[in-house]
Amino acid sequence: MTSAPGTPREDGRADDELRPITITRNWLDHAAGSVLVEFGKTKVLCAASASEGVPRWRKGSGLGWVTAEYAMLPASTNTRSDRESVKGRIGGRTHEISRLIGRSLRAVIDYKALGENTIQLDCDVLQADGGTRTAAITGAYVALADAVAHLRSTGAIKGEPLTGSVAAVSVGIIDGVPRLDLPYVEDVRAETDMNVVMTGDGTFVEVQGTAEGAAFDRTELNALLDLAVKGCADLTRMQNDALGS
Amino acid sequence: MTSAPGTPREDGRADDELRPITITRNWLDHAAGSVLVEFGKTKVLCAASASEGVPRWRKGSGLGWVTAEYAMLPASTNTRSDRESVKGRIGGRTHEISRLIGRSLRAVIDYKALGENTIQLDCDVLQADGGTRTAAITGAYVALADAVAHLRSTGAIKGEPLTGSVAAVSVGIIDGVPRLDLPYVEDVRAETDMNVVMTGDGTFVEVQGTAEGAAFDRTELNALLDLAVKGCADLTRMQNDALGS
Amino acid sequence: MTSAPGTPREDGRADDELRPITITRNWLDHAAGSVLVEFGKTKVLCAASASEGVPRWRKGSGLGWVTAEYAMLPASTNTRSDRESVKGRIGGRTHEISRLIGRSLRAVIDYKALGENTIQLDCDVLQADGGTRTAAITGAYVALADAVAHLRSTGAIKGEPLTGSVAAVSVGIIDGVPRLDLPYVEDVRAETDMNVVMTGDGTFVEVQGTAEGAAFDRTELNALLDLAVKGCADLTRMQNDALGS
Amino acid sequence: MTSAPGTPREDGRADDELRPITITRNWLDHAAGSVLVEFGKTKVLCAASASEGVPRWRKGSGLGWVTAEYAMLPASTNTRSDRESVKGRIGGRTHEISRLIGRSLRAVIDYKALGENTIQLDCDVLQADGGTRTAAITGAYVALADAVAHLRSTGAIKGEPLTGSVAAVSVGIIDGVPRLDLPYVEDVRAETDMNVVMTGDGTFVEVQGTAEGAAFDRTELNALLDLAVKGCADLTRMQNDALGS
Amino acid sequence: MTSAPGTPREDGRADDELRPITITRNWLDHAAGSVLVEFGKTKVLCAASASEGVPRWRKGSGLGWVTAEYAMLPASTNTRSDRESVKGRIGGRTHEISRLIGRSLRAVIDYKALGENTIQLDCDVLQADGGTRTAAITGAYVALADAVAHLRSTGAIKGEPLTGSVAAVSVGIIDGVPRLDLPYVEDVRAETDMNVVMTGDGTFVEVQGTAEGAAFDRTELNALLDLAVKGCADLTRMQNDALGS
Amino acid sequence: MTSAPGTPREDGRADDELRPITITRNWLDHAAGSVLVEFGKTKVLCAASASEGVPRWRKGSGLGWVTAEYAMLPASTNTRSDRESVKGRIGGRTHEISRLIGRSLRAVIDYKALGENTIQLDCDVLQADGGTRTAAITGAYVALADAVAHLRSTGAIKGEPLTGSVAAVSVGIIDGVPRLDLPYVEDVRAETDMNVVMTGDGTFVEVQGTAEGAAFDRTELNALLDLAVKGCADLTRMQNDALGS
Repeated sequence: MTSAPGTPREDGRADDELRPITITRNWLDHAAGSVLVEFGKTKVLCAASASEGVPRWRKGSGLGWVTAEYAMLPASTNTRSDRESVKGRIGGRTHEISRLIGRSLRAVIDYKALGENTIQLDCDVLQADGGTRTAAITGAYVALADAVAHLRSTGAIKGEPLTGSVAAVSVGIIDGVPRLDLPYVEDVRAETDMNVVMTGDGTFVEVQGTAEGAAFDRTELNALLDLAVKGCADLTRMQNDALGS
Repeated sequence: MTSAPGTPREDGRADDELRPITITRNWLDHAAGSVLVEFGKTKVLCAASASEGVPRWRKGSGLGWVTAEYAMLPASTNTRSDRESVKGRIGGRTHEISRLIGRSLRAVIDYKALGENTIQLDCDVLQADGGTRTAAITGAYVALADAVAHLRSTGAIKGEPLTGSVAAVSVGIIDGVPRLDLPYVEDVRAETDMNVVMTGDGTFVEVQGTAEGAAFDRTELNALLDLAVKGCADLTRMQNDALGS
Repeated sequence: MTSAPGTPREDGRADDELRPITITRNWLDHAAGSVLVEFGKTKVLCAASASEGVPRWRKGSGLGWVTAEYAMLPASTNTRSDRESVKGRIGGRTHEISRLIGRSLRAVIDYKALGENTIQLDCDVLQADGGTRTAAITGAYVALADAVAHLRSTGAIKGEPLTGSVAAVSVGIIDGVPRLDLPYVEDVRAETDMNVVMTGDGTFVEVQGTAEGAAFDRTELNALLDLAVKGCADLTRMQNDALGS
Repeated sequence: MTSAPGTPREDGRADDELRPITITRNWLDHAAGSVLVEFGKTKVLCAASASEGVPRWRKGSGLGWVTAEYAMLPASTNTRSDRESVKGRIGGRTHEISRLIGRSLRAVIDYKALGENTIQLDCDVLQADGGTRTAAITGAYVALADAVAHLRSTGAIKGEPLTGSVAAVSVGIIDGVPRLDLPYVEDVRAETDMNVVMTGDGTFVEVQGTAEGAAFDRTELNALLDLAVKGCADLTRMQNDALGS
Repeated sequence: MTSAPGTPREDGRADDELRPITITRNWLDHAAGSVLVEFGKTKVLCAASASEGVPRWRKGSGLGWVTAEYAMLPASTNTRSDRESVKGRIGGRTHEISRLIGRSLRAVIDYKALGENTIQLDCDVLQADGGTRTAAITGAYVALADAVAHLRSTGAIKGEPLTGSVAAVSVGIIDGVPRLDLPYVEDVRAETDMNVVMTGDGTFVEVQGTAEGAAFDRTELNALLDLAVKGCADLTRMQNDALGS
Repeated sequence: MTSAPGTPREDGRADDELRPITITRNWLDHAAGSVLVEFGKTKVLCAASASEGVPRWRKGSGLGWVTAEYAMLPASTNTRSDRESVKGRIGGRTHEISRLIGRSLRAVIDYKALGENTIQLDCDVLQADGGTRTAAITGAYVALADAVAHLRSTGAIKGEPLTGSVAAVSVGIIDGVPRLDLPYVEDVRAETDMNVVMTGDGTFVEVQGTAEGAAFDRTELNALLDLAVKGCADLTRMQNDALGS
């Protein structure tokens, strides 16, 4: 189903093939965990900062918290974008993606085992070429795993707050063909665009499909899900390799 | 698949049954189209305001624009929420839903037939009992249809900018059982929560599934989609009845 | 003095006659008190939310607090207005009216009998056709009375925090003729515009008169006050009827 | 009626007597008109800046515009107040007073004679001891007159945009006694508080009465209006003296 | 070195001569210390407000705090500037100068002797003609000294929190000539502009030199520093005279 | 003079020695110029974006514009800092540094040769270990040079808008010893802290010295300037090497 008809992809990939992925751990010196993740030209710096205590509404519960913030550097895009700090307000897209990353990571967290600690993930896009939110989730998981290991090494936590791993990928239909891991040039042309977040054992955490040009039917939806399942499995393998497990 | 095991729903509905739905047109005197839509106790006032001209980035294109804003009145929820105008910033959830409503309606718009006119949908939740975003989309479509009819009656547009209808419904898994159109008490207990937006002819516009408690597998995903397909078809019928067509 | 010379009012009313007034209690399910008040086409949803505790500056005083927020839905006006939450700031007019409503209701509150409880009034204009602030005060009093009754029924308060009732009406001079309860078409043409808030026993809580076109003399001021006294007495009767007392 | 029973005023004034008033013109070098006005210890710097052109919504109308902004320096009050620029938002009271000053001055402006010019009044309270808004209006009128004279001297305007003068004073009931021009110590104790703006020929521009402690009856309202009429007449004389006419 | 070649200064001063300086103490009634300082036409109102307690991050340390806020009235400049409270944000220049004033005054504070008290300096520019930040520092020191004396007189502090005095002056190179205390007309033409803050015993607290037109060499830097040393010594004498010591 | 007495520096450097400096050009694919500059552990990503046109106040002048924005990623510091976009306002320090970088680069720009083009420098601190503003200026100059070369290669500009090069370094006095290029551990202990910006031919663009602990005398000031002159000369060489000239 994913064999390409006629036109090949601009970058020569098969329709079910990821871009070159690199996951560089410990990119920063201060953060408990930090990863520079690259999906082709997309580069996202993911930093996990751990702190004692939890937000006020959670105090005294014995439960931890994991949250995330996503942002793009102004020069990360083709045409420079204005800074949200300068505009004085965060845009809807930024809010949406920050919330998505936080939910995705919390899906593999055992709050009780984390204890009243907070881990904050900062995902800053240094260069954007499509798939920044899925790269962010994929990289943030590795930074989170490093931060958790760090907390355990300092004795701040005893048990295992990670109940599994999480990875994410974008899929879309371009000229009627379902494709995996869209770069910007494909993303803008996609009729349908879907971001899928999955755990390492193959269950779904988030499925967000959007008809950009034309509504899609059940067959197309299924083809996109098949591609995403494959892509997330590939990414899970790379995360494990990076973590040396 | 949707037959309930053991525990029935609190409000006595079948698992694949919508709450009582009412769609009241022309609820306001000024707006080009206005609808009070009720999904059980959830009440959303949807107003469509038409104006000549389009946003700056679209000027001179000959194409129209449709956009939406969603908000909740402070006393619409069980416990009063603070006003976003008083807080001075719009929250992430509000942004996310406003964008979803806008995208959903634009899926059935022929920008060229609309000409350089803008239709703004305001969806204000007067009372919230789960499913406010899906009620908003379902009601907003009817308000939009009325606004389009109004523009045609005044000669502002000639052709037919509507390429179809759009409706939305929430589905979720509660205690392992897939259910349609969740009220608040079910929504907070759902393991998985999905909002599905569909056109009147049964194709998908948006599929947004989120694992709240546990990740979901492909079988559960399919069961949820089946329910949503049925719910959207029911809503489409009610929209058509309301519009008297 | 209030008999109209020559030109009758567009809606056929006598100069000292209110528009059709309706006061619908319990319009919402969650709020302690909620009223949909209509002065002709003006519709304001007034919700009273009760909560334990008072603002920080009042803690430990043994005294309660009552406050109000007023807002207009974007499509409530003839031409759609921008949302203040989107603009990120509340306008002067909104601030002014919120403060007026709060002061007016506090005029009939015995803070001691209320105890350290707060009642928050939300007055949201669903449709605006002149007199929104006076409709809001008139409706908010009824919502407040219901909230107080509710608090007493739950045992949260023992005594009677209401020392009386409060109602409000607009008056103005149009083409030299003093008139009661101005709809939008009269409001924009008024030379002088006055909002008067009175207790149920006929004393003044607020008198706010403004020369819009031409300054006014003492005789005109007195004629306007006479009309307002009559209008507030009529509204007091309707509030009592609505409350079934 | 204004004869004081028993207790005299702390500063020894008669009940219908103004505090010592000084009006110092040309306090600044840059502004077209500038006045330091003092009502006792209350000091307000009123500056009138003239500029060609009008706000966008008024362009091409041939009509001018007059607007005002009021603010208090942080150390102007007994206890330092936070800066609104630091808080990032303007409070309701500031908004309310700015709007009042603007409306009051526009009451004596012939927009046509002003032509498409804008005069901006800045009223900054350097020291506050009650009556800051009425001092601001009284001083701003003199600054406005100077700015108008300046515009005429430069040939920017030909006719006379001023149709009269305007002054304002506060009145209130303290311990049952109506009094004129309240300093802070009286203001906080007043049962009823009223600000009255009048033209130089004795008609009303604004009447804003508020029951602070107890609602007031028609007799009290009349006594307050009598006092205000006298106070505004006195202030009008002092404005004329200051302007040397 | 500071003798002027050819062209004299517009106001006839020698190149190393200050403008007429006046320091008026106790300009306000409420503040613990208040000074109207004038450097020629530049007028800055400096108020020192003392309060018990310190910011949260300093609580329990036994140490005091001194901080400052600088602002310009809208009509203080040649052409009216917009209010930062209306714009809803503080500009970079304002931030920069507020921080400079705070640092400068803290350079002569013994936090321990101050105890857990805070002194807030408000420097509001009533009229600007160059050198507003240096006038503000010079005046604020005198207001601070008065506030400290006041705190000692009330017994709030026992020891001497002031370890010295502080004054500031601007210097610049105009047409190749180094000059002291630049008014606006010289400031805009300066090739290099430097603000220097010094203690009363002749050491440096801040040196901020900026090449406006052309970069400067070491010789020019030294000439500017020489002028600043002289100017600050003169200002120190005037501060002492004003404080009557 | 810069020979260290007793205690050597923690990182073993001589007092007049820079940290290891790396300047990596073309770190991003989109920006006209982009540099990752490292001063020891301090890493700043400097991107230069070129666009046609200039800010409104400069239109039609035939002159170009260069401006800069500085920001720190939240995890760049030892302890995570909150995002300014989330706080909704830019802090004073950020404003101050952005302005400093902009002024520094404009010192070597011939606006006329640039024509009506704007170059925007974004300096984002990925990791902070002291000296972020001086690293930013040093790296931004190289990014600017690349952007200028790019504009010339596309024919957007003809002449040479760069009149020279610019570099910056921090110096400070630690335990009485003047030292060059302070890392964070030295910066927090410095009695005096100075940032110096110089052109490639050895003249001063900015000198910003601040007494953190104790005021400094003329001798210390001179010693710091000597060190800065040496450091900037070293950096200028490295910039030239990086640019391959």
